[in-house]
Amino acid sequence: MDATRYTDLNTAQRTLLGPGPSMVHPRVLRAMATPLIGHLDPQFIAVMNEVQELLRYVFQTENELTIPVSGTGSASMEAALVNFIEPGDRVLVAVNGYFGERLCDMAGRYGAEVDRIDRPWGEVFDPQEIADALKKNNYKLLALVHAETSTGARQPDIATIAKAAHEEGALVVLDTVTSLGGLPVKIDEWNVDVAYSGAQKCLSVPPGVSPLTISERARTSLRERKSQVANWYLDLTMVEKYWGDARTYHHTAPVSMNFALREGLRLIAEEGLEARFERHQANAEMLWAGLEELDLPPLVPKEYRLPSLTTPQLSPSVDDAVVRGRLLNEYNIEIAGGFGPLAGKVWRIGLMGFSSRKENVLTLLAALKEVL
Amino acid sequence: MDATRYTDLNTAQRTLLGPGPSMVHPRVLRAMATPLIGHLDPQFIAVMNEVQELLRYVFQTENELTIPVSGTGSASMEAALVNFIEPGDRVLVAVNGYFGERLCDMAGRYGAEVDRIDRPWGEVFDPQEIADALKKNNYKLLALVHAETSTGARQPDIATIAKAAHEEGALVVLDTVTSLGGLPVKIDEWNVDVAYSGAQKCLSVPPGVSPLTISERARTSLRERKSQVANWYLDLTMVEKYWGDARTYHHTAPVSMNFALREGLRLIAEEGLEARFERHQANAEMLWAGLEELDLPPLVPKEYRLPSLTTPQLSPSVDDAVVRGRLLNEYNIEIAGGFGPLAGKVWRIGLMGFSSRKENVLTLLAALKEVL
Repeated sequence: MDATRYTDLNTAQRTLLGPGPSMVHPRVLRAMATPLIGHLDPQFIAVMNEVQELLRYVFQTENELTIPVSGTGSASMEAALVNFIEPGDRVLVAVNGYFGERLCDMAGRYGAEVDRIDRPWGEVFDPQEIADALKKNNYKLLALVHAETSTGARQPDIATIAKAAHEEGALVVLDTVTSLGGLPVKIDEWNVDVAYSGAQKCLSVPPGVSPLTISERARTSLRERKSQVANWYLDLTMVEKYWGDARTYHHTAPVSMNFALREGLRLIAEEGLEARFERHQANAEMLWAGLEELDLPPLVPKEYRLPSLTTPQLSPSVDDAVVRGRLLNEYNIEIAGGFGPLAGKVWRIGLMGFSSRKENVLTLLAALKEVL
Repeated sequence: MDATRYTDLNTAQRTLLGPGPSMVHPRVLRAMATPLIGHLDPQFIAVMNEVQELLRYVFQTENELTIPVSGTGSASMEAALVNFIEPGDRVLVAVNGYFGERLCDMAGRYGAEVDRIDRPWGEVFDPQEIADALKKNNYKLLALVHAETSTGARQPDIATIAKAAHEEGALVVLDTVTSLGGLPVKIDEWNVDVAYSGAQKCLSVPPGVSPLTISERARTSLRERKSQVANWYLDLTMVEKYWGDARTYHHTAPVSMNFALREGLRLIAEEGLEARFERHQANAEMLWAGLEELDLPPLVPKEYRLPSLTTPQLSPSVDDAVVRGRLLNEYNIEIAGGFGPLAGKVWRIGLMGFSSRKENVLTLLAALKEVL
């Protein structure tokens, strides 16, 4: 082994304006670099308590079982399903983008009978069509996406949809990966049972932990399972004993990532949720105006367009990969392409958390003007 | 929300001598605090390639599919099982401590018919008894623990055991959580098919990523599955496309944790595996001599005692919890208690990676002398 082959880490300073990871505030990086303490140390237990309190604040919930899952957003997505599905359970998934597709894939792996209701990528659902679909079968749960990271669409009327699901006896599982911390997510007011998110989007914390919140109704369902949860790492019947009063060892929590998450959430508490949402909206509107001027009109109508993620449509004259490559290599700006049915048709531009700053909008628009 | 309730992170400076996390070298903390780049950025792909090369070095393997799983050690443990088990497969687990128990639990969740062979906690297996047990049924895989973190015992003769398993057509899954980077782990020479570890033990990287290596024999088995892998996040048929040439998006990799892992592995490459193993052995022997003097004789016979984790036996006069509490609160030293059948009977003292230093041994022995 010639160790000299491996130099000091020397990565470029990127302006991260893709669908995540977003940029991370220096305070979060510094907190993450704190020397470690043990995962059962009383001082770490205190950190855990604070992380839970702060997560409840951003989720706007009183749910006791509100925790960071020890993996990236896909892990909390899987935790949100596997704990509430037993083989043969019927699950309804509302699909209008990639992450709806993934919910179907995951639910199927755990033996659910999956029905789906579809809308084209970029559109959202009318609550009534979901209510109608819920009546067609005896569903254990309804899963849907609040903020579709693949399309930039925000599903409105979550409260109405949750009410319809509860009338049919179904739990509501909500993907808030690209909304939590960037636009209102009101778990208790909307009566959502299970919601998950990622750290690396509007919370501006490095990927590696992922917020999850579970209502009392969902916990009752978890307790009433007849079979063991078909996943050890994400089994909430065990995880809740580590994050609850018992503090029973389950797996080693990612200590440094929890330090980072605590600091990222503390920054949100200092800014205040309302001010943060206003900042995201104002910077997004500035971006949208600039994109219209560049003949890159957003795909999603303004009434349900995400402030955190914009999907401008490309005219045929724009060479998708070439432009993104030049932005990255010449200007150190990351944006992302579309995928699935939107591949080559849109970009995905994120203004999330610490990335949502006026100077970043200006830099991107100016660079686009140069490159196009 | 009163944000002033949450102060700057102000945790104590601990000497971490428990079963993990171990102490982290300042270079690793600094690398982890590097501003983020995207998880599909060409510069991150370069980091991924280097992490894979360095992981092959510590695993002493040429296995192409050698990666960090995006979770703590328990996640790579689960990945090592779920990808190679289909419902109804017969699995043999050698159990001589807590982590053998957990292997049984996990394998059962994925529908395996689990047989077990047992040894009391603290003992190891004779390869012949495992060879005999392998003949009793048509096993798809044999799972066993190289370094039992719950007991401090090192299973010898892995190569002999692997040979017996292969003669019976079984894959070999090996837990190297508390051995990788601290004592020899020779995946190719021993002919092990699947091995997993944690970052936060002898690699001295914060918990959050966990090394996994997969032989070509195991990859063939993965390709020949009849059913989908019953776990989305850990499905290697998808994960290998992100870590392989295709670089297909699966889940967002924990970018900062991979920066940290790269730096931790680079430190190992600079030290050299042989020198590192000698350091672990020398410091462990210094600890063992000191413990004998304090009438705390190690539980495990020297011939199969781990240099990375020592389990001194407590005489009835020692108040387990009181002594550990005083070490933590008065001297900032963390060691751990025993659990399961060893609760109250032993401590678990880790000398792993950056924690394995002469000064730490001296400090612990001196503090124990004060407290006892």
